[in-house]
Amino acid sequence: MVDVSAFVAGPTCGLYLAQMGAEVIRVDTVGGGPDFRRWPLAENGSSLYWESLNKSKKSVAIDLARPEGRELVQRLAAAPGENAGLFVTNFPVDGFLSYENLRKLRDDLICVRVMGWADGSQGMDYTINSALGLPLMTGPVGDDRPVNHVLAAWDLLTGAYCAFGLVAALLARMRGQGGREIRAPLSDVGAATMANLGFTAEALMTGHQRPRMGNDLFGAFGRDFQTKDGEKLMLLCITPRQWSKALEALGIVEAVKQVEADLGLSFATDEGLRFTHREHLYPLFERAFAAKTAAELAPAFDAGGVTWGAYQTLEAALSDPRLFKGNPMFQDIAHPSGKTYPAPGAMGTIPQDTRGPVTPAPKLGQHTDEVLANVLGLSGGEIGRLHDAGVVAGPAA
Amino acid sequence: MVDVSAFVAGPTCGLYLAQMGAEVIRVDTVGGGPDFRRWPLAENGSSLYWESLNKSKKSVAIDLARPEGRELVQRLAAAPGENAGLFVTNFPVDGFLSYENLRKLRDDLICVRVMGWADGSQGMDYTINSALGLPLMTGPVGDDRPVNHVLAAWDLLTGAYCAFGLVAALLARMRGQGGREIRAPLSDVGAATMANLGFTAEALMTGHQRPRMGNDLFGAFGRDFQTKDGEKLMLLCITPRQWSKALEALGIVEAVKQVEADLGLSFATDEGLRFTHREHLYPLFERAFAAKTAAELAPAFDAGGVTWGAYQTLEAALSDPRLFKGNPMFQDIAHPSGKTYPAPGAMGTIPQDTRGPVTPAPKLGQHTDEVLANVLGLSGGEIGRLHDAGVVAGPAA
Repeated sequence: MVDVSAFVAGPTCGLYLAQMGAEVIRVDTVGGGPDFRRWPLAENGSSLYWESLNKSKKSVAIDLARPEGRELVQRLAAAPGENAGLFVTNFPVDGFLSYENLRKLRDDLICVRVMGWADGSQGMDYTINSALGLPLMTGPVGDDRPVNHVLAAWDLLTGAYCAFGLVAALLARMRGQGGREIRAPLSDVGAATMANLGFTAEALMTGHQRPRMGNDLFGAFGRDFQTKDGEKLMLLCITPRQWSKALEALGIVEAVKQVEADLGLSFATDEGLRFTHREHLYPLFERAFAAKTAAELAPAFDAGGVTWGAYQTLEAALSDPRLFKGNPMFQDIAHPSGKTYPAPGAMGTIPQDTRGPVTPAPKLGQHTDEVLANVLGLSGGEIGRLHDAGVVAGPAA
Repeated sequence: MVDVSAFVAGPTCGLYLAQMGAEVIRVDTVGGGPDFRRWPLAENGSSLYWESLNKSKKSVAIDLARPEGRELVQRLAAAPGENAGLFVTNFPVDGFLSYENLRKLRDDLICVRVMGWADGSQGMDYTINSALGLPLMTGPVGDDRPVNHVLAAWDLLTGAYCAFGLVAALLARMRGQGGREIRAPLSDVGAATMANLGFTAEALMTGHQRPRMGNDLFGAFGRDFQTKDGEKLMLLCITPRQWSKALEALGIVEAVKQVEADLGLSFATDEGLRFTHREHLYPLFERAFAAKTAAELAPAFDAGGVTWGAYQTLEAALSDPRLFKGNPMFQDIAHPSGKTYPAPGAMGTIPQDTRGPVTPAPKLGQHTDEVLANVLGLSGGEIGRLHDAGVVAGPAA
């Protein structure tokens, strides 16, 4: 599979495939594309972002501004073979990597194209997100400033969806249905998802988007609460069981019964009532959390099967055995930046299989010669000429 | 494919497959599971969330608390056929829908299992997210309260990744590699993603997580700015081209040159310098935005190829032709709630193909009899007995 993309969506698509065992060839322009120096950086200027998103891939450096370089990329994307002719890109629909151009080289080519806006105009995660209303629904009540997400959720979702689309298209091709292009614009992924989760139906029915409500869980009971020692814990009670277990662990069963009696209703089986009347419930929960330390609450919550979580920093998470420390998904490996740090393999675990080694990102251009020889069948002399002409490059010395 | 799951991750996995043409059978317990009444609701109490997440699926209602019902679900999950024996669930690893149990019925079964924490303990999107540090990186500077995301990003990413994993496993099975279980815990998806984006490497190197910085784009230039008429626009300048185009459109080329001269550096080719010195740059941008209305800036930005976006509400987005209005991905259809509103088909567009009709979610139990007869080969008498015994149910009258 050939990955000619930048930033998050396209590269994660390639990453997921590489970590499932596919040979993924990432093509960058000589010297690196727009994401090659993306922060965070190591002290030597090497991008921790680029090397994290391109693990387990091969790297080919080709001058994408020159016709001869462009032709090489087209031939790589449309390379022959049952498991080749698989291509992910975020290059323009109508540029030199258009589906029409590539299809001339291989009729059953599969191309997955990440786009910004569906009409082909420039859009990135942040600007699509600002158009969907979410930043106006996010953040503390009483502060009307838009709050962007820090996690590029639309990019990530689009990347995983492209990996799905690509493999589904490969399956169809194996079944004799030929190739296809699948276009995945962030704007369509965003619009479809807002609809799939019911946000748009809600806005159509109420006439306005869901109001900003801080960390309150919409339509059920949940929020962050502060413990005696100032820790913040997130509590979720959607199912009847989650609700009853939380009340028991907090020792507020009777107090909630009193609220139910006062209001003439029952919270147990109707999560929505808990949301509607949450202002009556919050004081009980706030007092119960404030009466105990996080260290006292945690074992009671866990013993009772309560759905809760502590807010912690990422540096704390790094020593959390549930996430990073000792997680078999992670292995300590040496990266192109010269740094050695833990990196994850595939996000899915197959319990029957032993996890293979996590392999680092390549150096830029590390596999240029190998790929040109093996995939395109170029001779040593031809490859040498391309180097001399500056059309391709190997790794920096 | 059989989908016995609730909430977002599992159901979106099934939805993506259904919208790519797979027959997806969603199994709920009789009367509906924990997400069947999830908000938002229509006036009649029907869940707009459930019906949006289960479009294009078949619905079977089986009492999951009874042994006879459980056995039926096991047989459905492990049904024979080249395109069957495909199963997505968020049920416990070691419960009646364990891989070991199902594998006894079909050795090459493919099972994708959404989990909360990788150790099998309860976790949902919000509680995994609170453990990863993101809510402490999100939101306005100077307000230290955690800010949860409103979009269930981990759920969504996990769902799309599961769809990818399931199709990849099917491909492997077609190639003679047998079946497998793929476990996708939200905690592993979260931890891997924080690493894939470089967040963890950064925290390991600096000793702390990325500080909260409001809507500032990390490592490059970007933020929301306010126009003369009080609109908020997001601006992004990562590439040299994005930077130069924005300066031109805002008429601040010379002013920025002066800052560069004062500081003795050049912003053009080093996005990181723009970030490091952003406090010197913000006043120029703030003044330029404040001098014009959004209606004046928009055409200048678009003509110049600037990467920008306006913050708008979801109700405004609904009439935005780039997102919802007239988007061929959406069709106006009648839903089980009795409401007619636009719903999307597949998030990916295949330009060669005409989009088929978007099909609504089923009524709960709508396909119980059909599926029991066609997939399990039960006779009419047997199905009748199951109804009489309350083990299965059809749609409410």
